[in-house]
Amino acid sequence: MKKLISNGMIVTAADTYLGDILIDNGVVVMIGTGLEAQDAEVVDASGCYVFPGGVDPHTHLDMPFGGTVTADDFETGTKAAAFGGTTTIIDFCLTTKGETLQKAVNTWHGKARGKAVIDYGFHLMVSEVTETVLTELPRIIHEEGISSLKVFMAYKNVLQADDGTLYRTLLLAKEQGALVMVHAENGDVIDFLVNEALAAGRTEPIYHALTRPPELEGEATGRAVALTGMADSQLYVVHVTCAEAVRQIEAGRAKGLQIYGETCPQYLNLDVSYLEKTNFEGAKYVWSPPLREAWNQEVLWNALRSGSLQTVGSDQCSFNFKGQKELGLGDFSKIPNGGPMIEDRLSVLYSEGVEKGRISLNQFVNIISTTSAKLFGLFPQKGTIAIGSDADIVIFDPSVRRKISAETHHMNVDYNAFEGMDIMGEPITVLVRGEFVIRDKEFVGMPGSGHYLHRKKFGATNGIATKPSSSEGVL
Amino acid sequence: MKKLISNGMIVTAADTYLGDILIDNGVVVMIGTGLEAQDAEVVDASGCYVFPGGVDPHTHLDMPFGGTVTADDFETGTKAAAFGGTTTIIDFCLTTKGETLQKAVNTWHGKARGKAVIDYGFHLMVSEVTETVLTELPRIIHEEGISSLKVFMAYKNVLQADDGTLYRTLLLAKEQGALVMVHAENGDVIDFLVNEALAAGRTEPIYHALTRPPELEGEATGRAVALTGMADSQLYVVHVTCAEAVRQIEAGRAKGLQIYGETCPQYLNLDVSYLEKTNFEGAKYVWSPPLREAWNQEVLWNALRSGSLQTVGSDQCSFNFKGQKELGLGDFSKIPNGGPMIEDRLSVLYSEGVEKGRISLNQFVNIISTTSAKLFGLFPQKGTIAIGSDADIVIFDPSVRRKISAETHHMNVDYNAFEGMDIMGEPITVLVRGEFVIRDKEFVGMPGSGHYLHRKKFGATNGIATKPSSSEGVL
Amino acid sequence: MKKLISNGMIVTAADTYLGDILIDNGVVVMIGTGLEAQDAEVVDASGCYVFPGGVDPHTHLDMPFGGTVTADDFETGTKAAAFGGTTTIIDFCLTTKGETLQKAVNTWHGKARGKAVIDYGFHLMVSEVTETVLTELPRIIHEEGISSLKVFMAYKNVLQADDGTLYRTLLLAKEQGALVMVHAENGDVIDFLVNEALAAGRTEPIYHALTRPPELEGEATGRAVALTGMADSQLYVVHVTCAEAVRQIEAGRAKGLQIYGETCPQYLNLDVSYLEKTNFEGAKYVWSPPLREAWNQEVLWNALRSGSLQTVGSDQCSFNFKGQKELGLGDFSKIPNGGPMIEDRLSVLYSEGVEKGRISLNQFVNIISTTSAKLFGLFPQKGTIAIGSDADIVIFDPSVRRKISAETHHMNVDYNAFEGMDIMGEPITVLVRGEFVIRDKEFVGMPGSGHYLHRKKFGATNGIATKPSSSEGVL
Amino acid sequence: MKKLISNGMIVTAADTYLGDILIDNGVVVMIGTGLEAQDAEVVDASGCYVFPGGVDPHTHLDMPFGGTVTADDFETGTKAAAFGGTTTIIDFCLTTKGETLQKAVNTWHGKARGKAVIDYGFHLMVSEVTETVLTELPRIIHEEGISSLKVFMAYKNVLQADDGTLYRTLLLAKEQGALVMVHAENGDVIDFLVNEALAAGRTEPIYHALTRPPELEGEATGRAVALTGMADSQLYVVHVTCAEAVRQIEAGRAKGLQIYGETCPQYLNLDVSYLEKTNFEGAKYVWSPPLREAWNQEVLWNALRSGSLQTVGSDQCSFNFKGQKELGLGDFSKIPNGGPMIEDRLSVLYSEGVEKGRISLNQFVNIISTTSAKLFGLFPQKGTIAIGSDADIVIFDPSVRRKISAETHHMNVDYNAFEGMDIMGEPITVLVRGEFVIRDKEFVGMPGSGHYLHRKKFGATNGIATKPSSSEGVL
Repeated sequence: MKKLISNGMIVTAADTYLGDILIDNGVVVMIGTGLEAQDAEVVDASGCYVFPGGVDPHTHLDMPFGGTVTADDFETGTKAAAFGGTTTIIDFCLTTKGETLQKAVNTWHGKARGKAVIDYGFHLMVSEVTETVLTELPRIIHEEGISSLKVFMAYKNVLQADDGTLYRTLLLAKEQGALVMVHAENGDVIDFLVNEALAAGRTEPIYHALTRPPELEGEATGRAVALTGMADSQLYVVHVTCAEAVRQIEAGRAKGLQIYGETCPQYLNLDVSYLEKTNFEGAKYVWSPPLREAWNQEVLWNALRSGSLQTVGSDQCSFNFKGQKELGLGDFSKIPNGGPMIEDRLSVLYSEGVEKGRISLNQFVNIISTTSAKLFGLFPQKGTIAIGSDADIVIFDPSVRRKISAETHHMNVDYNAFEGMDIMGEPITVLVRGEFVIRDKEFVGMPGSGHYLHRKKFGATNGIATKPSSSEGVL
Repeated sequence: MKKLISNGMIVTAADTYLGDILIDNGVVVMIGTGLEAQDAEVVDASGCYVFPGGVDPHTHLDMPFGGTVTADDFETGTKAAAFGGTTTIIDFCLTTKGETLQKAVNTWHGKARGKAVIDYGFHLMVSEVTETVLTELPRIIHEEGISSLKVFMAYKNVLQADDGTLYRTLLLAKEQGALVMVHAENGDVIDFLVNEALAAGRTEPIYHALTRPPELEGEATGRAVALTGMADSQLYVVHVTCAEAVRQIEAGRAKGLQIYGETCPQYLNLDVSYLEKTNFEGAKYVWSPPLREAWNQEVLWNALRSGSLQTVGSDQCSFNFKGQKELGLGDFSKIPNGGPMIEDRLSVLYSEGVEKGRISLNQFVNIISTTSAKLFGLFPQKGTIAIGSDADIVIFDPSVRRKISAETHHMNVDYNAFEGMDIMGEPITVLVRGEFVIRDKEFVGMPGSGHYLHRKKFGATNGIATKPSSSEGVL
Repeated sequence: MKKLISNGMIVTAADTYLGDILIDNGVVVMIGTGLEAQDAEVVDASGCYVFPGGVDPHTHLDMPFGGTVTADDFETGTKAAAFGGTTTIIDFCLTTKGETLQKAVNTWHGKARGKAVIDYGFHLMVSEVTETVLTELPRIIHEEGISSLKVFMAYKNVLQADDGTLYRTLLLAKEQGALVMVHAENGDVIDFLVNEALAAGRTEPIYHALTRPPELEGEATGRAVALTGMADSQLYVVHVTCAEAVRQIEAGRAKGLQIYGETCPQYLNLDVSYLEKTNFEGAKYVWSPPLREAWNQEVLWNALRSGSLQTVGSDQCSFNFKGQKELGLGDFSKIPNGGPMIEDRLSVLYSEGVEKGRISLNQFVNIISTTSAKLFGLFPQKGTIAIGSDADIVIFDPSVRRKISAETHHMNVDYNAFEGMDIMGEPITVLVRGEFVIRDKEFVGMPGSGHYLHRKKFGATNGIATKPSSSEGVL
Repeated sequence: MKKLISNGMIVTAADTYLGDILIDNGVVVMIGTGLEAQDAEVVDASGCYVFPGGVDPHTHLDMPFGGTVTADDFETGTKAAAFGGTTTIIDFCLTTKGETLQKAVNTWHGKARGKAVIDYGFHLMVSEVTETVLTELPRIIHEEGISSLKVFMAYKNVLQADDGTLYRTLLLAKEQGALVMVHAENGDVIDFLVNEALAAGRTEPIYHALTRPPELEGEATGRAVALTGMADSQLYVVHVTCAEAVRQIEAGRAKGLQIYGETCPQYLNLDVSYLEKTNFEGAKYVWSPPLREAWNQEVLWNALRSGSLQTVGSDQCSFNFKGQKELGLGDFSKIPNGGPMIEDRLSVLYSEGVEKGRISLNQFVNIISTTSAKLFGLFPQKGTIAIGSDADIVIFDPSVRRKISAETHHMNVDYNAFEGMDIMGEPITVLVRGEFVIRDKEFVGMPGSGHYLHRKKFGATNGIATKPSSSEGVL
């Protein structure tokens, strides 16, 4: 059945205007003023913003980590995402050395199928580049539509790849039209610092942060940028937390390199002092990279405003405080890394960003949705409100005043890192491909209704300028 | 009468999609696919891009300079602009020390009235900040809708303001919601170098460039950025030409300052060697700042792609080679500065930028139209194709292959700086507020049909984030 | 009569060794161990350092300023210098527009003649470059031996030169073998800020600092560096106070430019909070540029250690608190700028620098003596202890613990900016050209015994590398 | 027997003066003019410079590499050094994983004993930091007097240490008073590039350079600097070749870190085009890092002049073209890395540096001798001409005009990388501890006369400022 979103203030990455949106067959077919409903169901959006559904480029659902599994799976996680105004996620598919990439992808399909209530795609982790991988990877990129590859520079002996692997992945990505994503921290030095701290009996959560200083994130970011320049490839730095890393990204971009950066709500709004909360509550705030000194927050906001950073991902990776975070009692290195962010990503960015004048409304949409769709081969199907695009739509009431709380959130986890935070605005109604998933703040969707997204290659077709290569590479 | 632009590839700063645009009463009222014409005149845009009309933030029409007057006035200049796909210009209103600002504005209204075939606004030059100016300026900003103030750091003893004036203007602009524009070159040193060159008998056009080295542009740019930071104000650097200046703008933006930068088609595509053309033809390429060594071009393109520079203005300021440029025979300092660019701005940026992969199609629209509308208080009336916006529309055929030439251009000047350049794409039909000005490459507009634009204040209402002030200023 | 300085720890910019120094006819003729006295007077230096006499590159003695005259003239000032271990000063000869340079130099000779107890030279201020100046200046440089030219970028309408004058001076200096010195602050903006502050009734001493923010020093320093690069000349930035300026100097040096920088004891050890002292005592700490936030101190120490800054001058410019500083009661802009520093320069640098590990002993000598002698054409006559050099020697006891106080200092001024500061080390005996000026902490010299120093040109003969010009300049 | 070096122009890192030097018992005991010979042998130095003997901080003598051994051992190598004016070397003692450090040191003692004709010390390579190493290293530092530790970031699977090892070494060095030296290239990526090149049949010498691009040196340098900052330790970057690395060193120094850098004669004077010489002659110019594009040379000279780089080492590592370099015929990766430089280091630096005005005479001595002595715990025994210092003295005739050639050099190797280069100046006579080793260009020394140098700890006693720690480290 057709739907007519009427009289909302429609906002895209470029525009802000009052209008009606007619949806047919899951896509936007007409936009105008005073459109007649005819056979369409009318959804009144008066007094609300109408945003394209959020695209969250960074989630970890149903993911094993350190002997446990994230508290949210594709059902609870995507429901919470929908409540928060996100209609597309791209989740990280972990691979295992010695096993085929296809097997890993199949596993991830298995996790999502029948559960997701919004659309989803996968990034693929690359931990080594063997001949097998070289053979299989192009096929995965093209047949599975997985055009982004994740390389870890940290988590020594677990996920960490060496620089040769990162460089090969960059070369391959350029050749095959993929975007390389890095977790940029120097894992070798962190490994030493963690061992030293534990040996010295420093076991509390705050030592998680102190053993991962910002210098090590800045260093690794600069290293990844340098290798990207050499490979004339493209790089996306996930979860940027600090000035040291921002400066390296800016330097790369100033040279004309294709470097992109993501930060997360936690780094924009929380700081390292949270890890010192008593009663082990600091463990709730254990992310890698860790929270930083508060002054970095304004550096990150500035970078979003000026365009040095382009996206905000949730890095959703939730663990219950009871039973999961507690695995690290007496040993901070055993605290599962990560937190619940998938639901509050949009609202926090709107409330702290737009309402406080740090970013414009159009920048907000660009950051929360459009740019991720473009970078990850989903545009214009996702990431905008335009003729022909999927009708992934969020009706957002900016007049709501509320507090974030674990008591009211929809993530399957027993705490919220923003507990008690005052928020302006709330997603009221959310549609995915023209179907209601959230309606008047109630979940009305269906597990399994989310589609897997076969993503396009990185590049021009998505509105990303891929400049003529400045070089033919090193050799 | 209504119009229906049908079946074009509509491009905005964010989106690219196939659709029809219904225009009524001069504004866009509906966008969709398969829209029915009903009572509307149908304009077939199949196979073409449909862009928002260009907004040229930098023109000098009917302007006196060095004892002569620019070859193009508001009639010939805006006609040529329309042929080139530009539907709005903002022209610089010069002021005279000792006379009221209102008198200067009135003079400029007189120049445009009855002549302009597209819409136009004015920037106001500030050369001194006396008590009179302090009293009058707020009124001009608000009542005349002139929310941008130009300060010259060059042209000693003619237009140049001192640093105290620049600083006061920045403070006043912050307070009143205006954007300060600077011509950033060190006029004191240039003045000395010019005199030295002439005294040494170095009179050829190339000495125009050699007496205005890029160091002096970088220096002045850095100075303006520093003062903007102190004043916690906003700055727009016009006609950026070189790496030295780009680096200063990047440094300011990295600090979170509101610094914007414009470059021009000539700096992106021509280089200093043109000033060495024989038979005094070098004089055709005399701009201030001057053309630079060719390697700077890629720096400028990179800056546009990465967002360090945001706009491309024409700096239209045409003088005939015969009779006008020739005033500088035997003395390069008497060559009128400037050239004809208003017509080719869009096409050159499309052809060299989009077609060569240096910028994306959406970046192109943003650079050529949307950002200028936002920065200068014209958005969303101008700068986009969206419901409620003025139907300023360019139908652009990307398949055309043509050469630029003075023989075919429409500017009232006897040469073209891009003579013989191969171009891909051409504006075919151009509408201003829903009325044809160019139709199938023919001028069908009417002198005087252009409206004066009363512009909004700089800031949030235009989609520009104005961050919370980082300071209360120096005192 | 010959003298033998026996058994001291001799320190030069390179070396530290135990030895005896034989002096004959005012110069060092032999260095060794166990030298026999024969007909020489023996001065026991056991347990002491033996340094080359300090060369203070920056003093203002008997200088008119703002309707008053500095409290110290060439007699009291040089006596105090001698007590502090300084045996050579270079004082600034002010010029007056419209009068000949020679007249100004003659005036300065008159001030010093018959009074100075240590040797002295002059820098010459350049406030305009007229044809007369162009004619006269080469003669002054060569015949008077004044190979350093001072340009003020601040003190609008009083001392300030415009950028054209600075640039011409740089060109002339290169041609004639002189070193250009700049006071780098943006005088235009300061002038505005001062007027604004006074108009707003902000008249206390702290507003002296607040109307001269570090951004304006950084900006002006960058401007001077840029012009030096263009002129391929040489620059010495006097009294550097802040990170903003240090970064500009570093950037210039990294490009290979000949940029040198001086800081002063006050900027290394005091901070802006001193200007907030009650009872108008803040006026004692009024320098231009002003004292800065305390964190800048470590930046300056780092710059001295790493070599980005090369010298420490006193900027001696003393005014009594009573009767002179008080001229600014009710109007900070009338407080005479400057303070008494000539006596404590060495001791403070030793105590805070060497004893605290911030600089090495050899760096100390280099900073306090050798480099100034080299840069200003006095080496090897001054600035070292070596065969053939003037026997300007300081016997310094590092074991003394004392406090600085106006009660015990020898400057003719009623306060000391370091009042109560704990100091390690003290000059015990000081010789100038082999004659005692201070002996066992008593003044034994004679007014008028100081010689005027005809200085050599800037460059290679003084141990300064003057690289092959990277360019022939702009034209 | 006493010696009297008479009437030479004595040059130290600070001074230049005419004088006589009296030597007794191997040390300098008196300096003056007109010293009487009495019982001393007089060596006339009229018309010559008298320099302190060169201290070469970087040699590889009798070193196994890739299945062969360097052509020069401690006898031929130190003889050639002496001919070139070098009187002290510090050679790299390689270690083997799994064997004790003491065993390695003993091996190196065995190589030098009975052979060296000049004095020598050892650096120690650190490839892993096991508990055994942690126990043994402090003892080696103190008992063997080996206060410098070398870490390789390149030569994967051979010499390369990981970042954790580098960081631990930095911590340990700080604690024990040692200086960490790094070979800064990213070995992981180089390893990949080399394999790719060989797999593609690119086997010629030029591919040695192309598989080790400057980005990888810059990256690794920046990484080492970042870790040094975190550890609050001290770093010496060996053989810096390019702008990318210099900029990283400058950035570290600007932050106040204790970062030092060395370059080599080959990087100052040769460029990458040499590797393209035909008939496999390119192999003669295979160093790691490789020769760079020629414009980097002026960057390196500037860095020496401004103080961003402090020393010039030879990186002596000679292999015959015939039989040794030829091992890489058909596979550039098998070309032994390195070349003969120990003999020409001083002369080339003098001729290209001092004579061409790029560095001053005092800087030359500082670079070639004094600073290495200070950094490596040999000062003031070595590195200067001062009372009490070893009489390591070079009499250097600056008026000689000659050409470098393998036919006349004294290294045991069949080519010279500077073959045919015009040189101004030549060491005529060289003394070590007061004994002639070279006399009137003839070797008169004795194998085994060189002493092993037990070096002091890094730090203040050597004239190096070790600032108060800015932090207590990460934990």
